[in-house]
Amino acid sequence: MTTDAGWTLTQTGYDTETSRAYEGLFTQGSGYLHTRGSLEESIASAPQNTTYLRMPANVTAETFASTPVKWGTYVPGLFGPHPTLNSEMINLPWFLEFALEVEGEKLDMSKSAVRRHVRTLDMGSATLTRTLEWQTKSGATLAVTYERFISAVRPALSVQRVTLRADRMVEVTARAGIDADVRTNGFDHFTKIVFTQEECGGSCTVETNGGDSCSMLSRVHVPDGEVVNARVEARLLSMDASLSVVPDVALVVEKRTAVATSVDLELRTVQEVLDEAAALSYDALHQEHAARWAERWDGAGVVVEGDDRTQNALRASIFHLLRSHVTGDSRVAVDAKGYAGDAYYGRFFWDTEMYLMPFYLYTDPERAGTFADFRVRSLPAAQENARAYGYPGARFPWESDKQGNECCPCWQYMDHEIHITADVVYGLEHCAAVLGWGALRAKTVETVVEAARYWMARMDIRAGESHPSLLGVMGPDEYTPISSNNAYTNWMVARALRLAAELGPQGGASREEREAFRAAADSLPILRDSINPNLILQCEEWPQLAEPDYESQWPGREGCYVAAVSQERLYRTKCPKQADVIMLQTLFPLDFTDAECRAAWDEYVPYTTHDSSLSVGIHALMALRLDMRDAAYEYFQKGLYKDLDVKGGGAEDGIHIAGCGCNWMVAIFGFAGLLSALQSNTLSLHPRLPRQWSRLAFPVMWKGSPAYVSVMADGTTVTNRGDRDLAVSVWGEQRILPAGQQTKW
Amino acid sequence: MTTDAGWTLTQTGYDTETSRAYEGLFTQGSGYLHTRGSLEESIASAPQNTTYLRMPANVTAETFASTPVKWGTYVPGLFGPHPTLNSEMINLPWFLEFALEVEGEKLDMSKSAVRRHVRTLDMGSATLTRTLEWQTKSGATLAVTYERFISAVRPALSVQRVTLRADRMVEVTARAGIDADVRTNGFDHFTKIVFTQEECGGSCTVETNGGDSCSMLSRVHVPDGEVVNARVEARLLSMDASLSVVPDVALVVEKRTAVATSVDLELRTVQEVLDEAAALSYDALHQEHAARWAERWDGAGVVVEGDDRTQNALRASIFHLLRSHVTGDSRVAVDAKGYAGDAYYGRFFWDTEMYLMPFYLYTDPERAGTFADFRVRSLPAAQENARAYGYPGARFPWESDKQGNECCPCWQYMDHEIHITADVVYGLEHCAAVLGWGALRAKTVETVVEAARYWMARMDIRAGESHPSLLGVMGPDEYTPISSNNAYTNWMVARALRLAAELGPQGGASREEREAFRAAADSLPILRDSINPNLILQCEEWPQLAEPDYESQWPGREGCYVAAVSQERLYRTKCPKQADVIMLQTLFPLDFTDAECRAAWDEYVPYTTHDSSLSVGIHALMALRLDMRDAAYEYFQKGLYKDLDVKGGGAEDGIHIAGCGCNWMVAIFGFAGLLSALQSNTLSLHPRLPRQWSRLAFPVMWKGSPAYVSVMADGTTVTNRGDRDLAVSVWGEQRILPAGQQTKW
Repeated sequence: MTTDAGWTLTQTGYDTETSRAYEGLFTQGSGYLHTRGSLEESIASAPQNTTYLRMPANVTAETFASTPVKWGTYVPGLFGPHPTLNSEMINLPWFLEFALEVEGEKLDMSKSAVRRHVRTLDMGSATLTRTLEWQTKSGATLAVTYERFISAVRPALSVQRVTLRADRMVEVTARAGIDADVRTNGFDHFTKIVFTQEECGGSCTVETNGGDSCSMLSRVHVPDGEVVNARVEARLLSMDASLSVVPDVALVVEKRTAVATSVDLELRTVQEVLDEAAALSYDALHQEHAARWAERWDGAGVVVEGDDRTQNALRASIFHLLRSHVTGDSRVAVDAKGYAGDAYYGRFFWDTEMYLMPFYLYTDPERAGTFADFRVRSLPAAQENARAYGYPGARFPWESDKQGNECCPCWQYMDHEIHITADVVYGLEHCAAVLGWGALRAKTVETVVEAARYWMARMDIRAGESHPSLLGVMGPDEYTPISSNNAYTNWMVARALRLAAELGPQGGASREEREAFRAAADSLPILRDSINPNLILQCEEWPQLAEPDYESQWPGREGCYVAAVSQERLYRTKCPKQADVIMLQTLFPLDFTDAECRAAWDEYVPYTTHDSSLSVGIHALMALRLDMRDAAYEYFQKGLYKDLDVKGGGAEDGIHIAGCGCNWMVAIFGFAGLLSALQSNTLSLHPRLPRQWSRLAFPVMWKGSPAYVSVMADGTTVTNRGDRDLAVSVWGEQRILPAGQQTKW
Repeated sequence: MTTDAGWTLTQTGYDTETSRAYEGLFTQGSGYLHTRGSLEESIASAPQNTTYLRMPANVTAETFASTPVKWGTYVPGLFGPHPTLNSEMINLPWFLEFALEVEGEKLDMSKSAVRRHVRTLDMGSATLTRTLEWQTKSGATLAVTYERFISAVRPALSVQRVTLRADRMVEVTARAGIDADVRTNGFDHFTKIVFTQEECGGSCTVETNGGDSCSMLSRVHVPDGEVVNARVEARLLSMDASLSVVPDVALVVEKRTAVATSVDLELRTVQEVLDEAAALSYDALHQEHAARWAERWDGAGVVVEGDDRTQNALRASIFHLLRSHVTGDSRVAVDAKGYAGDAYYGRFFWDTEMYLMPFYLYTDPERAGTFADFRVRSLPAAQENARAYGYPGARFPWESDKQGNECCPCWQYMDHEIHITADVVYGLEHCAAVLGWGALRAKTVETVVEAARYWMARMDIRAGESHPSLLGVMGPDEYTPISSNNAYTNWMVARALRLAAELGPQGGASREEREAFRAAADSLPILRDSINPNLILQCEEWPQLAEPDYESQWPGREGCYVAAVSQERLYRTKCPKQADVIMLQTLFPLDFTDAECRAAWDEYVPYTTHDSSLSVGIHALMALRLDMRDAAYEYFQKGLYKDLDVKGGGAEDGIHIAGCGCNWMVAIFGFAGLLSALQSNTLSLHPRLPRQWSRLAFPVMWKGSPAYVSVMADGTTVTNRGDRDLAVSVWGEQRILPAGQQTKW
């Protein structure tokens, strides 16, 4: 993996060890359509149609048969039932094939004589370029350049181009296929596959076991005089362009593919999509696409000066955040792998509110609002879920499909990780703090009240006690599966209850209910250590858990702890999977003293395994709060390189998109010290740059007012990019910035 | 369900609601071969070939599509892999078909005009008889009598006879089939099915996905002049006897079936089995069979006088205990459903040692010894299992297949219900106390030491404590899934460690190891309530669990609690599934004071759900200890009627065979007050008859000495049936009984 201060991520050469990681990292997408960054041709021994029965398991701990190639084509919202795992997002037919054959020899990166193989993702224009020189067995040297993008302007359109140059006359076949012989987590979701052929193209329509359909139409554009022959073989449509490459003359072939599904918001046919673009050249299409991406970067790009590696990696996170989110479609949120892999089944977790929403809220709040919409839409499913568990109100699912149904196949998370319902309310409140309650869907307040009703029934008052408790709870630390009065959960629930009490009148809560909400919120305990009252206990059981023996059981802390020991040991040991009390303290920095934060740090950090990719960023935030900038920088780097570490697996199963969101949070909430709209009414900064950086600069949308922040060693400059006054506070010193003005602290 | 003081269980009439329960209850078997008590013909709409994917789940809580017919044919040891549930016992082809057809009309109990339908299981001779009168549409009345048994003398031989009488001349077809179109828990285990045909018969051989094969050969014997035609239709072999029934003349047809499998201890062909019996008439075969069963009853029958209902029900328990156990084959134990259903997958649980072994140990100790052998045979699998979890030594599986592999598909039991390893050691020790260590397999002591090594590594010493703890444990109460220092577990483990320390030198344990075993045993805590020190706490978490609200959530305590609430609520609430501390106290009555037993009773009984069939019997035992005879009698009745309650489901998914063992324990350890060989060296009785009974009498084998005990209101008489002196103690008064003598206390 090569990175630079600029806009590109580069793969040089090719090896099967890292190829899947690059496929994930180079995922492109328009929000509507996403494709993994697979090569245009496959390699030997990498079948995509292996059928197997995947069983419910802890995804973190699961190991898979590794395959060097994993295609992935995703349209958010296309879910179908899986026989053992509940509803999952379907991996659609792969339409990017653009494979080369010269005189009977196929280009195969695992076998062919290839030099100078370089792939570059230009994040600025969301374009993937690949160049190589192929020395064919027949003695020719073929220089190949592939370019491809999924149009940001025409989200259903994929555009590919290949440019061929040879050192002698050579007959090349370029096979442009649509391959429907793919599986999702080992399962075949297609109930029907229909191909059609037309001159220089063809289409594939699949019907899914989720009752949906998806059509793809590809057209191949060859120079005059060249021929394209389409044919269907079993589940594959091949469009073969027979090309005569003349020495030293570039021969260019294009492949355009349109996708349409039965769940599209705007129903247009694949023909319409292609026809509308037909008059535009590749370059024209690319130009409008790149311009749209430039706008996006303008509203969300973060500049880091003095640290090229960080600049580049942070851009990768933001690239995937910008790519993942479907503008305007609140029927889905962003799945756990950012539409870049089959892992986690395309489902929506607490990531939505806690790790993803902030980026969108402070760069493009309307987009964040669709997350709130998504949850409110799923209120009926949450109500049904509550009833299935024997409770009134609304209980949100740990793993949500697009309707909000619980899909988690493992009971420990599904049954016990109930903080999700409080996280959803937190997300609604966060959105409302930015957008105003009036901007949210009508049933938002009802959702808050219904969640509170669930909580009221979910609490127990134990024998001999007068206060309520939340028992049988899994907090963010998923390695302590069934615990009591988890601090994170109790705090979030108390907050949610207070909100319901406050909003209650609009949400249909009676006065008695609201009083009960408030009383419960006030008496739900946050436990503290008996000796050090500054130490907030993760849960009642914490002091009684076993001590881990990392030295002997996890030497060098290589890999995940979960891979080193049995789950049974995890579940009785102090070995948090991720930040738990510290997560709470970073969400509400003003509500905890430095001494409380320090006590939590001293207690939990030595035990914490960071097996979750969501852990290190939160620790970076807390390290900054405690002014440990070097430690913060180190945690930040671990988070930044999660997807970029191709040798360590990186993004092979998809992008750690919540981690991307967390990386942005560390930069903005951490190094720039922006307080969230839930913690401050004013745009408020407490910058703490790491010594490596000379500048940190970024746009921020503060409650409707656009601003630009630039932090340097000698001071912080804020520009009011809006058209009305903006109050800004830096390290507590508040000033009013008139429209268009810039001020330095 | 009709019962009497005698030897029969009777079904009168027929309805689809209770038919599956009778099928289970009327299961017959030879130890080698077991068949559910299905009718000789099927009914409409009861397919046996429904394929579905059964998922891992809590079996107690699972609900199934109910079907009025469930065939079951089992040979212990025939296991095969199931795609989602691990290895399971395979339901073999059904060979009992003997269906009648008159002039185009099939006898179908759900449709035909049938009067006087009565089925009777004679437990004394293990013979199932069925009589009915069928008024055919063609106007004839056909009186039918079916009889069948699986020979106790020839365990691979099934013998069936049908006697037909008609009021007019009638043409009857008797179809005698072997139907291989069956499933096990929805799965088809057969990889190959081969039929052969011979005159008046035919065979079916299946190969299984476990790599085994099973052959069945049926021959139909008709009166001279009648014809049998065999034919194969897909997965069914039909042998149709065309019969001309003459008015008022009994026409008799026989069907004999032999079974042989690739896992048989004695490899004999199905032809050999049938040929050897060929010279013997039905009556002769039945006579030798009934004589063998009479011997069995002589060694194990329990007489209850003054309470016919109890007498009959207790006989049903003992019948199934006698039926289930394969004499001499220690490659298997008795599965959780007594080879009478697919539920629990034919696996072996702690039931083996804790609920089944006692019956055999005190009636036929060599048979009990095969259970010990079974576990010692599986030592290599237990060692591998320990290593898979990261421990040295031997860790026995919660759900064992015949090799001792862990098959449990639910992690909470598999990972945490580790008391099984101590239960196995308890069983070995119990066997040794009766048979002597010398009588057990060579590696028995090594097994004890290896188990101790596992325990040493499984214990934790927590920060701030000096004693070891067992954390992350599920005790017998499976509704408290992850608890600390469970009293039952800690006590059993301490006992196992002490035994290993004692036996260590023979088992290869060093002196240091033995000292460590003993030290750990002495310091593993048994927790007590802080206010009432007589109260032993089930676990550390007990006082902190939520109070149940049975009144609102489980009104009338109808059905199982697990069916009334979500698992998530179970797991945080005081609602024991079964006896836990009380189980411990009944196992070791001399080690606990009355005050301790009373305190446990007062604390736990109000909360206990008895969702496990293993609970009520243990409570009956404790009630007797506390001299609450009426309460004991009531608990005992609940246990006795578990399988007999056909309206409540009864034995529909198989016999609660551990419950049967527990029923015997309540009679012998409870009402007669026999102390186990682990609690007393002498045959020692403390009889406490319920007021309903005038007499309780039973044979007992006490460490090689046969005796007969008769308890009446006016005293207890013990007969020494052996050939040497026997010391006997009744209520603490010890006497020496010379051989052959009888004494009354």
